[in-house]
Amino acid sequence: MSKPLPRALGFDVFGTVVDWRCSVVRQSRPFLDALSRQDIDAGLFADGWRARYAPAMRQVNAGERPFVALDVLHRENLEDLLREHGVDPADLGEEALAEWNRAWHRLDPWPDAVEGLTRLKSRFPVVALSNGNVAMMVAMARHGGLPWDAILGAEFARIYKTHPRAYLATAEALGLEPSELCLVAAHHSDLAAARACRLLTAYVDRPDEHGGGSAPDAHARQDWEWSANSFTELADMLGCD
Amino acid sequence: MSKPLPRALGFDVFGTVVDWRCSVVRQSRPFLDALSRQDIDAGLFADGWRARYAPAMRQVNAGERPFVALDVLHRENLEDLLREHGVDPADLGEEALAEWNRAWHRLDPWPDAVEGLTRLKSRFPVVALSNGNVAMMVAMARHGGLPWDAILGAEFARIYKTHPRAYLATAEALGLEPSELCLVAAHHSDLAAARACRLLTAYVDRPDEHGGGSAPDAHARQDWEWSANSFTELADMLGCD
Repeated sequence: MSKPLPRALGFDVFGTVVDWRCSVVRQSRPFLDALSRQDIDAGLFADGWRARYAPAMRQVNAGERPFVALDVLHRENLEDLLREHGVDPADLGEEALAEWNRAWHRLDPWPDAVEGLTRLKSRFPVVALSNGNVAMMVAMARHGGLPWDAILGAEFARIYKTHPRAYLATAEALGLEPSELCLVAAHHSDLAAARACRLLTAYVDRPDEHGGGSAPDAHARQDWEWSANSFTELADMLGCD
Repeated sequence: MSKPLPRALGFDVFGTVVDWRCSVVRQSRPFLDALSRQDIDAGLFADGWRARYAPAMRQVNAGERPFVALDVLHRENLEDLLREHGVDPADLGEEALAEWNRAWHRLDPWPDAVEGLTRLKSRFPVVALSNGNVAMMVAMARHGGLPWDAILGAEFARIYKTHPRAYLATAEALGLEPSELCLVAAHHSDLAAARACRLLTAYVDRPDEHGGGSAPDAHARQDWEWSANSFTELADMLGCD
């Protein structure tokens, strides 16, 4: 293969490294039960929580509000979603709301993620290039055993993907040209934004991310430098032991 | 012991985790030899390089220049030191200067550091709270096997220790109150600045840091929350397996 190898790998995390949906569903059920709201489908609740993520980030990236960590957006979105279901968040109390919000700190890795990351790390620095904030990424790595070399991305850059600065600040912090950094992601829109910044791109297919639903950005598909069905397959492609 | 335990540990790195002096001496000798400058003592050269570090950072912290990574300051200081020895840096060429400067990316850990950090990590998130930049800290961790959960400190905060913001931004990124974060350092001045920000403090004695010379900040000694002779002893004190 004659294409140039990257000098470091930056990973999207939600959906690419971890199965956010199953993890949030599982952790939301006890809270919905405690509210005696078994009528609310936990899967749809997780989808509704996640759906509020993009518009909330857009406000930050549009300069309509200063940068705040994703933990803050998640908490606002949880309260908003509860109100939509007729629940007053204040009835839960601060401790329960904070604990529910920390469900995003305890997302389980996909089955191949830890083995694949560990193999990839043997050859390349592996960094989180996620919209998740540092506290969330640290907790998630300790929960799931993710061996990050560094946590970069949105909080480091003080702007959310898919803003170019999120990718470019990550490359710069690693002392690399953008073309020396490869984004690994399960989302075509993320990869397209990275490519527009001259990053290399590796797609990893995660067909179960949306619990059977279809990916919202299939239209953004391109011919990425690498395309794999798992991190271990990507490790094979990149010549890692 | 009734004092409260920290919820995370932030580590000074140069001198505390790694033996910068021996590592820089060893890596500078071949360059001095290639310049036929065996008359320059590599130990004094390393000390001279390091001595330019504090004044260079002060310019940034005083607002006299925008934040630049420590790699940039090290490179300027190397060229300055060479000129002082009558060497024109241009004679070495860009590649050799860059390689010499990367000596700071390949500093060896103290003998107890990896075992101690690994034990401490079993109970507490362990993060670099250093003035070293991300690229340097990532390379150093991969060189020495340092198992950081995250690399925070100066480049994340865009200001150097001992400015309060370097400590406070690190605590904030971890989602902690300053009083929940403990700085681990071999330098009393660093610990004093952290304590002034309400951080917990752990002193680790590194009598060999200055190659037999005395520590420049012995006058700043206080009664720190913990005081140990190694990271493994600190792990014992903090109840880590």
